[in-house]
Amino acid sequence: MTERALQDLLDALRRLPGVGARSAQRMAFHLLQHDREGARRIAAALQAADRQVRHCERCYTFTEGVLCSICLDPRRDARLLAVVETPADQAALERSGSFRGLYFVLMGRLSPLDGVGVRDIGMAPLLERTGDSALEEVIVATSFTAEGEATAALIAQALAGRGIKVTRLARGVPAGSELEYVDLSTIAHALSDRR
Amino acid sequence: MTERALQDLLDALRRLPGVGARSAQRMAFHLLQHDREGARRIAAALQAADRQVRHCERCYTFTEGVLCSICLDPRRDARLLAVVETPADQAALERSGSFRGLYFVLMGRLSPLDGVGVRDIGMAPLLERTGDSALEEVIVATSFTAEGEATAALIAQALAGRGIKVTRLARGVPAGSELEYVDLSTIAHALSDRR
Repeated sequence: MTERALQDLLDALRRLPGVGARSAQRMAFHLLQHDREGARRIAAALQAADRQVRHCERCYTFTEGVLCSICLDPRRDARLLAVVETPADQAALERSGSFRGLYFVLMGRLSPLDGVGVRDIGMAPLLERTGDSALEEVIVATSFTAEGEATAALIAQALAGRGIKVTRLARGVPAGSELEYVDLSTIAHALSDRR
Repeated sequence: MTERALQDLLDALRRLPGVGARSAQRMAFHLLQHDREGARRIAAALQAADRQVRHCERCYTFTEGVLCSICLDPRRDARLLAVVETPADQAALERSGSFRGLYFVLMGRLSPLDGVGVRDIGMAPLLERTGDSALEEVIVATSFTAEGEATAALIAQALAGRGIKVTRLARGVPAGSELEYVDLSTIAHALSDRR
């Protein structure tokens, strides 16, 4: 396996997150031996996405136009803005079918240990976005991890005194779970946020 | 994430072995948000490998020429032929630095449960390859798994009566291991193959 094109492929595949030397070898072997058509499709899809995908000018998520389909949808409630970390989190909220407002996607979260600071997430465009006069409430829907909480605190701080209501997703017992197996901190939050 | 180019990329990435919906999303997000250069490099490497990589006409491994660099090397001992399952296994033998013969790469192993039969691995080219008059010994270096053993048995059977010595890699206790932690079947083999 010291041939040039093969070695280049192994090196390139290792740039994928979570892919080490062994996975890269397995992927290259599979594509070259069993799925040449797949190799060509992945290459074409990567090139098309690189050319066409950019950030929505309004909510910062990935899109192929100037604005994404959600920002363009006139049926969405412009008074509500959910701030999420990633397009995947946005997709999860959409799947729940219970949010009809708009989004702002930070494309990251504060993570000092990984060198991700305030400048590396979309705080400046978020502040600009929240200047919209139609906006009444910002729902901070970052993760309930240390990093997500720090990001949420930063957002709350940045939006303080701008006349916008800032809320956070409720913490509590997940649907379908038995109390016995729920961790203590979740139970404590569910108790204090009881309604 | 319902945009066309993005969805195509997610679908394409799922053709990689071991990559499900979540990994594909993580990979696409990482490349588009943090490593556009990586996306272009992977695409180019896939296309180059698809165009240039084919099978060595002599040993069936991946190569960019008619014959691979090992088959072309006049210093290799043409009397010895190691039969391995994959280029990765071949690379492992090479790294050991203790084999100076040639190789034959099956590009698979018998696996009836996965629908991999005799026709799907390189048995016909192997039989042709072993017609070489310089050849004295075939070292069957397939894995010591049920599938690897079945493949080894098939090879031994196919080569029987052709005047070639057929050997198998020794089974035994791995270097650096304490007997206490070695599995019983390995110890049994190490005992019966003691020297």
